[in-house]
Amino acid sequence: MSETRTLASYLINSRIDDIPADIQHESRRSLLNYIGCAVGGSREPSVEILLSAMQPYFGKPTAGILARAERMDPLHAALMNGMTSHVFEYDDTLPKNYIHPSPPLASALFAYATANRVTGKDFIHSYLLGFETEARIGNAIYPAHYEAGWHITSTAGVFGAAAAIGKLLSLSVEQMIWALGIAATQASGLRENFGYMAKYFHAGHAAKNGYTSAILAKSDFTAGPHSIEGPRGFAAVTAAKYDLSKITNGLGTEFQIRDNAYKPYPCGLVVHPTIDGCIELHQTYHPVPAEIESVRVRVAPLVLDLCNKKDITRGLEGKYSIYHSTALGLVRGKAGLQEYTDAAVNDPAVKQVRERVVAISDASITEDQSHIEVELADGRKLVKFVEESIGNLRRPLTDKQLEDKLRDQASFVLPAAQIEKLIELCWKIDALEDVGELVKATVPS
Amino acid sequence: MSETRTLASYLINSRIDDIPADIQHESRRSLLNYIGCAVGGSREPSVEILLSAMQPYFGKPTAGILARAERMDPLHAALMNGMTSHVFEYDDTLPKNYIHPSPPLASALFAYATANRVTGKDFIHSYLLGFETEARIGNAIYPAHYEAGWHITSTAGVFGAAAAIGKLLSLSVEQMIWALGIAATQASGLRENFGYMAKYFHAGHAAKNGYTSAILAKSDFTAGPHSIEGPRGFAAVTAAKYDLSKITNGLGTEFQIRDNAYKPYPCGLVVHPTIDGCIELHQTYHPVPAEIESVRVRVAPLVLDLCNKKDITRGLEGKYSIYHSTALGLVRGKAGLQEYTDAAVNDPAVKQVRERVVAISDASITEDQSHIEVELADGRKLVKFVEESIGNLRRPLTDKQLEDKLRDQASFVLPAAQIEKLIELCWKIDALEDVGELVKATVPS
Repeated sequence: MSETRTLASYLINSRIDDIPADIQHESRRSLLNYIGCAVGGSREPSVEILLSAMQPYFGKPTAGILARAERMDPLHAALMNGMTSHVFEYDDTLPKNYIHPSPPLASALFAYATANRVTGKDFIHSYLLGFETEARIGNAIYPAHYEAGWHITSTAGVFGAAAAIGKLLSLSVEQMIWALGIAATQASGLRENFGYMAKYFHAGHAAKNGYTSAILAKSDFTAGPHSIEGPRGFAAVTAAKYDLSKITNGLGTEFQIRDNAYKPYPCGLVVHPTIDGCIELHQTYHPVPAEIESVRVRVAPLVLDLCNKKDITRGLEGKYSIYHSTALGLVRGKAGLQEYTDAAVNDPAVKQVRERVVAISDASITEDQSHIEVELADGRKLVKFVEESIGNLRRPLTDKQLEDKLRDQASFVLPAAQIEKLIELCWKIDALEDVGELVKATVPS
Repeated sequence: MSETRTLASYLINSRIDDIPADIQHESRRSLLNYIGCAVGGSREPSVEILLSAMQPYFGKPTAGILARAERMDPLHAALMNGMTSHVFEYDDTLPKNYIHPSPPLASALFAYATANRVTGKDFIHSYLLGFETEARIGNAIYPAHYEAGWHITSTAGVFGAAAAIGKLLSLSVEQMIWALGIAATQASGLRENFGYMAKYFHAGHAAKNGYTSAILAKSDFTAGPHSIEGPRGFAAVTAAKYDLSKITNGLGTEFQIRDNAYKPYPCGLVVHPTIDGCIELHQTYHPVPAEIESVRVRVAPLVLDLCNKKDITRGLEGKYSIYHSTALGLVRGKAGLQEYTDAAVNDPAVKQVRERVVAISDASITEDQSHIEVELADGRKLVKFVEESIGNLRRPLTDKQLEDKLRDQASFVLPAAQIEKLIELCWKIDALEDVGELVKATVPS
């Protein structure tokens, strides 16, 4: 029994009509969220650097990217889309394994769809299959793989992109096995780069390499048949503990996209409950920053594992600082894109409060929870326990909230009328004859 | 103290005049061996597949590759050179860590040198620095990293390519730290793919990604400052045990290329002592294949770990079969390129003997040794103990033997006169004003 083969067979034999309507709707929500991120992130300085550094190496301009007019080959388009959609840390997240599933996957698909005519139906179908692939592989290796230091969005994401593009290329089962093997052998991305531009490159790298895997397999470029489950395969090599049954159990009946979460704040999911609580304290008490004497937050251990940067000067570092996010909630009562800029990190009021925050790792607190205690100069103590954060699976963002999130992000790039047109197209993506149309609608006209 | 920073500073501050003459000569030997491999492998079916599958994605044709007339962007040229130079398993090997150092490294450098004017002196210098980089990182993580299932040629090789191209691009120390970080985060390649085309892709993938790392760093695309030694850095994430002092101890005084070995047979180094012994038995006794009743080889444990494929039908699998190589030595008295084809693997005489070979893992046998016992139908027992294999560090191939190896490989591709011209250019590479000339000399005119 080979998990790689079982998965490949499922991918090749799946039909869109076998996928329930609510799952198909969730794919539209995920893609709308993805597009907002890609448009919003499309003008970031690190994106400009990547674009201008790689431009001399672009191939024939047969493809386009989201939100920008530049043309390039589809592999570099996948790379660029991955960078723009991930760079704000505003993308979707699977709370089960902390994969950001759409950037590596949808970035490859949209790149493909600008260079090849793809119907919305085929697009959604490939997206959902790629999603299953990366989410299930992620489930199998989480948490050992992530704890070891792998950026799971990148390492699992490359499989998602390979599966999705492989589906559009109508690979045979054997070829899909090779595509997964070529993807496995390109899986990479270290958490050591969190807080640096290379982190956002990961998503694009996975998109590009997954796409490449499918292209090579289509030409009968071979790889090992057991690239996931073999003794020197992806699972054994990159995870001290893993459960391969999570790849195959319920394949075709239990869809992982049901667990997809969309962020209300552009930073790691694990600090969201703390932000929720601090915003609520801000709204209730309006504490004066200078009068905040001390703040104690008790959080799940993973929070400090991921977001323990305190002495920071750059916006990007703020995304990895439970201290900064705590201060933002208390001082500004919000944590939007403008709160994770260099200016916000160096804002004296925010900085002062940030330095007074103590974070305590507490294994009795779940990753959805946070316990916040604020002491004020007048002796008052403000306490808030957050049971479940906004945007988590039990308090998901509504369709309307997702639209507003896209509106907010896209407002940096597109005129309002174009944004409304874009939202409309997102909701009816599966009716499109040519998904390239949707990509064009993201480019300022 | 940061190993990444120490290494980056060394790379940036190194001057060619600080490198001893014998080390410079060894780089010429390594490059001559590399070029023979790249020329010899340039017409392999898997190379043709890679080339035609990727061709639609090639960028502006500013670069060339070894032994072929096609033009492309330098990143794809690095990929192609990596594939051709590794595909025959005839490339150089560091017995200390089993890295094939030249394919990922020299493939990037030659690609660069066709798109940019590089003097031989700068080329050799960058090559030697890239060599130090990948060999030392390999030493630090070997054997745990390799035993876990990583293809160390690829995972360490990407650092070598990044360092070498970074040197040619005159990066600052800070930029070199980022280049190493972007390389670290792209390090990949699973041993599960050994015996398949994806294995040879690894070397090219490392060359291309290392090259990309240097380009990005040159544009100030940032990565973490501790990508090698950090808690979520390359060493900790990919090796259960590692010794970072091997990266920095003796940097600039002890050169790893001294330990480079060149193969007399186009297969994994670990089966070479067995081949040596079997060829000697063949030459002494000329045993008739049908009369070989049984063969017992006692070998180091790593041999069975790497080359335990017995039931094989493809030439490529033969390279991973101690059984096949044993049979070749006994039946044919040689193990050249013609002995690892599909035809040779299916040759009835070879197959019959192969099936009679038993291999025993013996921890008292070193990886340079082999103990061979052959029983013949007439009751005779032939015994051979190989103490040290040909091509190992104490019995290195001479300059003349390296030339003959190149002649043999290149004879599939180039006319004899061009081969002699090429050999001449290889020996005087450091006098060249433009290394692109040497690449042109490998292309059939």
